Amino acid sequence: MKFAEATAVEKVGDGSYAGEVHPNWDIAGITNGGYLIAILARAMGEEAPGRELKSVSARFLNPGFPGPVTMEVETLKEGKGTTTLQGQLFQGGKTLFTAHATYSVPGMGSEIDASFRPAPEVRPPEECPRLVPALDGSMLPPPFTANVDLMMEPESLVMGPAAQGRAPDIKGWFRLLDGELLDPYGLVLATDAFPPAVFTAGFPLGWTPTVDISIYIRDPGPHEIVKAHVHTRHVTNGWLEEDVELWDTAGRLVAQSRQLALLAKG
Amino acid sequence: MKFAEATAVEKVGDGSYAGEVHPNWDIAGITNGGYLIAILARAMGEEAPGRELKSVSARFLNPGFPGPVTMEVETLKEGKGTTTLQGQLFQGGKTLFTAHATYSVPGMGSEIDASFRPAPEVRPPEECPRLVPALDGSMLPPPFTANVDLMMEPESLVMGPAAQGRAPDIKGWFRLLDGELLDPYGLVLATDAFPPAVFTAGFPLGWTPTVDISIYIRDPGPHEIVKAHVHTRHVTNGWLEEDVELWDTAGRLVAQSRQLALLAKG
Repeated sequence: MKFAEATAVEKVGDGSYAGEVHPNWDIAGITNGGYLIAILARAMGEEAPGRELKSVSARFLNPGFPGPVTMEVETLKEGKGTTTLQGQLFQGGKTLFTAHATYSVPGMGSEIDASFRPAPEVRPPEECPRLVPALDGSMLPPPFTANVDLMMEPESLVMGPAAQGRAPDIKGWFRLLDGELLDPYGLVLATDAFPPAVFTAGFPLGWTPTVDISIYIRDPGPHEIVKAHVHTRHVTNGWLEEDVELWDTAGRLVAQSRQLALLAKG
Repeated sequence: MKFAEATAVEKVGDGSYAGEVHPNWDIAGITNGGYLIAILARAMGEEAPGRELKSVSARFLNPGFPGPVTMEVETLKEGKGTTTLQGQLFQGGKTLFTAHATYSVPGMGSEIDASFRPAPEVRPPEECPRLVPALDGSMLPPPFTANVDLMMEPESLVMGPAAQGRAPDIKGWFRLLDGELLDPYGLVLATDAFPPAVFTAGFPLGWTPTVDISIYIRDPGPHEIVKAHVHTRHVTNGWLEEDVELWDTAGRLVAQSRQLALLAKG
């Protein structure tokens, strides 16, 4: 099933949408957050025709599981250049997350481009193993890796006690399967697809709950493949920020995200 | 007037609050965003008694001005460790911004602390000039600098054409006046108090609208003074992210923020 189908939405009323969380988009049985956000962002996009997703900020309340979901989307302001929306995604009577987002008229910014930090060096995709779901049902790699082509440098695959003393840092590549291209919703997925970077620094392997995430789409694409850098700089009383940058093959930033999460219990 | 008074809120109904945007908290006539968020965050805090602000994400719709404001706050979930809220702040029939936030039980995380990037070297406060409002009414420094002690390294004060070829990067210090300490709401203000870092790299000096901002409180304090690092790494078709880190005098991260903004028209 293509990602576009797995995140499809149907308008069922004024600002109301229905969708379906498909199986095998989970980590340890809990549906991936980026996948869920992509579903709501698609519904928001329906309310902002002709405009493209620029940024979305989500705050998680309850875990999601396979099955039907409903969404409510409210347009807060439709401006000349941007549309601001907020919405929630519900399942089984619970709010899974709340979000607000900005959609913009394509090309509304200036032509000015400048980068003050180059894309990181990452081994080419053919030297980065693709993650496939754990055969024995253990948490890593998660079932959701069957649905995407998530590649990591061999160095980034060292986790658990063997990684003690290293910095939380993952480098790799991400693309969809069967040539499906990454649009802004695919980039949303990609920013939240990699394992927590703290796993690569000797911190506990376990459920690392995301409190909130903000995702910026810097180039809507479509992109065939993106280079990914996932890193954490500060763990403070068990709370951590995780930053992700995605780059195209020419080394241009195409998306970035930051999330606040809690370290897994040791 | 103390910052706590300038951001005071009064409960006027079930989840409804009233406040006042005081004069001289503006940049080019438009009220500072961090100051506005602090007002709504205080109202949210009233709905989460005994819990402290951990993170807040806001999305701006309309500019604010001195005068009365009203707020609506909704508690989405009150969990064992965290409370999730969302709310809006209104003025003159317009929504100035929407926000969602998480408040947490003090000490709910673990004791684990680890930093993989040290605090930047910044000249001591006594070597960093305090910004004072422009005497001739020009945009920089803004009137709001009269209400805080915002200090910048002399190198960071170079703006406009003279700064061409440099990276967008500001280092300095921030504290409130008359010994008022920085609590989480003061840290919210501090993350959005400095001029846009792109001003220090030859980009146009002018209104640089914030689309959204996410602020993480890593140590609620109270803090007497914080070291600030304000920087932009990527300008993409006129859109830019701006990151801020605030550190205590011992070099520990106490708050960080990221915002998406649009470059001023040249």
